[in-house]
Amino acid sequence: MKLFNYWRSSASYRVRLALHFKGLSFEYAPVNLVKGEQHQAEHIARNPWHSVPVLQLDDGTLIPQSVAIVEYLEEKHPTPALFPRDLVARARMRAMVETVNSGIQPLHNLQVLNYVKDELKGDTKAWSEKWIGQGLDALEAMAKTSSGKFMVGDAFTFADACLLPQLFGARRFASVDAARYPTLIRVEAECMKLDFVQKARPEAQPDAVPA
Amino acid sequence: MKLFNYWRSSASYRVRLALHFKGLSFEYAPVNLVKGEQHQAEHIARNPWHSVPVLQLDDGTLIPQSVAIVEYLEEKHPTPALFPRDLVARARMRAMVETVNSGIQPLHNLQVLNYVKDELKGDTKAWSEKWIGQGLDALEAMAKTSSGKFMVGDAFTFADACLLPQLFGARRFASVDAARYPTLIRVEAECMKLDFVQKARPEAQPDAVPA
Repeated sequence: MKLFNYWRSSASYRVRLALHFKGLSFEYAPVNLVKGEQHQAEHIARNPWHSVPVLQLDDGTLIPQSVAIVEYLEEKHPTPALFPRDLVARARMRAMVETVNSGIQPLHNLQVLNYVKDELKGDTKAWSEKWIGQGLDALEAMAKTSSGKFMVGDAFTFADACLLPQLFGARRFASVDAARYPTLIRVEAECMKLDFVQKARPEAQPDAVPA
Repeated sequence: MKLFNYWRSSASYRVRLALHFKGLSFEYAPVNLVKGEQHQAEHIARNPWHSVPVLQLDDGTLIPQSVAIVEYLEEKHPTPALFPRDLVARARMRAMVETVNSGIQPLHNLQVLNYVKDELKGDTKAWSEKWIGQGLDALEAMAKTSSGKFMVGDAFTFADACLLPQLFGARRFASVDAARYPTLIRVEAECMKLDFVQKARPEAQPDAVPA
């Protein structure tokens, strides 16, 4: 497998977490979003929505969209399981995944922030803080009732693989107050103790640019 | 089951399509987004992200987020199947679902449009046309390679249950040129022949307001 991705992209980070959690080996293929490589013909042929990540299977099949990729990996390589077995717990997990994936993150991705800044002459910091604040508030409320050691009970799941990149992305654009999100920050610290999480972190990727 | 939803919400429409496709009966509980009922304490307790739809199970369990709800329904009530059986076809379907769910729709929902208009004094028509146009272009390109009679092969799937609401929503905010999206428009016409689709349409709901 080959993963077209970018070190700092939060959706890419979700998929790297899933791959490393499952111990699956993959070729790392960087797509530099800051240089605009996602808009080149070569990448649009992989994903007409111009985004990363895209997973390429060994037979050439291309799968874009982080949630579609992780659902595929869970179905194709079910062990170790990244999803709870209980149907209601799975639904709670997916509700948190989507609160990040379709709720918060789409509103502070690079192309939206550029449009707010360049076309609308808007304050991107205020914009990001509104959506990220509102989103993390929701996630904190959901985690409060479902979490144990991790976001859903005591096992690392896809919800944790969405939380870590969302907090990483949030800190780039807004302040993240630990007192406002006690559950999220506690779970994040727990996750950071895990070896596979360290392997998936943005800073550990070959295309990472030191701060 | 009870579905908290709103007739014109495109994410609500996706879940109604899944429920009617599977022949599952449910109580219709309207949440009026225009009156701001999604921000009332009663609804925030159902979904801290202040959105519809939310599915309430008979034991009181609450599931927010349309994708989480539909994945739950497919796991709990697998027949008739709304998802293909083949893993790669499932991944292709989910990639289209997420192109709508996390790509296009979050950028033209009511609260984002209100912020663009009220806080940024931006042109919401130009804003909507940019994201909807770019998103439907991507969806058309994906559908061209995967579609038969419907978005993925010859059976109605969750991808179709995302296409119909996305086109419905798009027409409210932007012009949708049939010549630019021949595959999407052809599939939409095919879907509209189905009885369960007619039952799920916004105009057929008890809280619909005539134009």
